[in-house]
Amino acid sequence: MGLELYLDLLSQPCRSIYIFARSNNIPFEFKHVELFKGPSKSEDAGKVSLLKKVPALKDGDFTLAECSTAILLYLSRKYNTPDHWYPSDIQKRARVDEYLSWHHANIRANAPKTMWIKVLIPLFTGQPLPSEKLQEVMEGLSTSLKQFEERFLQDKAFIIGSEISLADLVAIVELMQPVGVGCDIFEDRPRLREWRRRVEDAVGKELFFQAHEMILNIKELSNIQIDPQLKEQLAPVLMKLLK
Amino acid sequence: MGLELYLDLLSQPCRSIYIFARSNNIPFEFKHVELFKGPSKSEDAGKVSLLKKVPALKDGDFTLAECSTAILLYLSRKYNTPDHWYPSDIQKRARVDEYLSWHHANIRANAPKTMWIKVLIPLFTGQPLPSEKLQEVMEGLSTSLKQFEERFLQDKAFIIGSEISLADLVAIVELMQPVGVGCDIFEDRPRLREWRRRVEDAVGKELFFQAHEMILNIKELSNIQIDPQLKEQLAPVLMKLLK
Repeated sequence: MGLELYLDLLSQPCRSIYIFARSNNIPFEFKHVELFKGPSKSEDAGKVSLLKKVPALKDGDFTLAECSTAILLYLSRKYNTPDHWYPSDIQKRARVDEYLSWHHANIRANAPKTMWIKVLIPLFTGQPLPSEKLQEVMEGLSTSLKQFEERFLQDKAFIIGSEISLADLVAIVELMQPVGVGCDIFEDRPRLREWRRRVEDAVGKELFFQAHEMILNIKELSNIQIDPQLKEQLAPVLMKLLK
Repeated sequence: MGLELYLDLLSQPCRSIYIFARSNNIPFEFKHVELFKGPSKSEDAGKVSLLKKVPALKDGDFTLAECSTAILLYLSRKYNTPDHWYPSDIQKRARVDEYLSWHHANIRANAPKTMWIKVLIPLFTGQPLPSEKLQEVMEGLSTSLKQFEERFLQDKAFIIGSEISLADLVAIVELMQPVGVGCDIFEDRPRLREWRRRVEDAVGKELFFQAHEMILNIKELSNIQIDPQLKEQLAPVLMKLLK
């Protein structure tokens, strides 16, 4: 039995794994998980993911669940992907690790909230959120983006220099989440916009837009029938996360 | 110029780096930073850490700041430490990566709050916190510890098997934080206690207790003169973190 990846492309970490595997021609079976449709359709993923969360990887008897960084690194090692993704030069590699740490506490802590506010919370609770809340989240995200440009991107083509690495991939999928819900954070940020164009070119525009098709058409999500049990469970969690 | 490490041993990530470097006989200059004593004494660290946060590493012209995982991995690569710390076997290595991801979102998100509640918030705000708050935090921590035992430790000696890895080190320093403030989470958890004993033996008891001396005598912290400016800045941040 070959490599299986359990993914929902609405999720940013899932998209990073999808793009990484596809752009490196890693052969895998795509197991489509629908996060918002409740447990019945996700049964297969349930067997893989201990906490029933995507992304998950199954490689023979070996499984990894809800840890996109571990999955990306595992794939890079097992399939011996080009060095630039996670450079063997220890200083460059440390820069990727440094970015990944920062990313989780900053970009990852802010960017997804735009989708919760504009799409998920209204969908799960049936009520729109006050606009001050969106403004507060956008301010937090702006602070992170300023640091991203000044501390990490600087005047380089990519985060660690002239070539794309896992750091850029993990960053771009997260930053496309606000775009999908109508908060185009690239609009007034030329340096960030140019970086995004270079990332798209490096992985291939066709693959990039295919991976982001669902999030860029997120408004169609409002037609989705959400599992009522999931709705009941998630509404208070989403509200709490925004406090 | 050799390796310099900027550390405050009251901080868990700093202790993991200190123990790792010392137990692997990595030669370094210990640059002592006092987090709670304001900017004047931390000037050296300020030059290294872009966000004025420890831990920080300076190795010639190369610096890494406030990313303990990146620093640990850099040291393991540069000084070619024994394989068990971060195994070359890709499945075992992925287990370390998986733990580190989970750790930051779970143990790291809960354990330090015990110190904020019992020591830092009273010290910075001059007021004790209601006991319900501590109970709430301890419940969150209990949930994480249950997962730690059942999902990661299981019936193994260490997280990834029979030998200590970076995962155990990162976990133990975090779990000593509640102990320091009088919440002995090991007391009623024999499996966790046995694991702690094995970790102590693996790095050496003397080094382990030396690294934890300050946190185990945290009550003396109440005698520290805290920089008034820092007090003013940190009090609202600490209160917000606990909401």
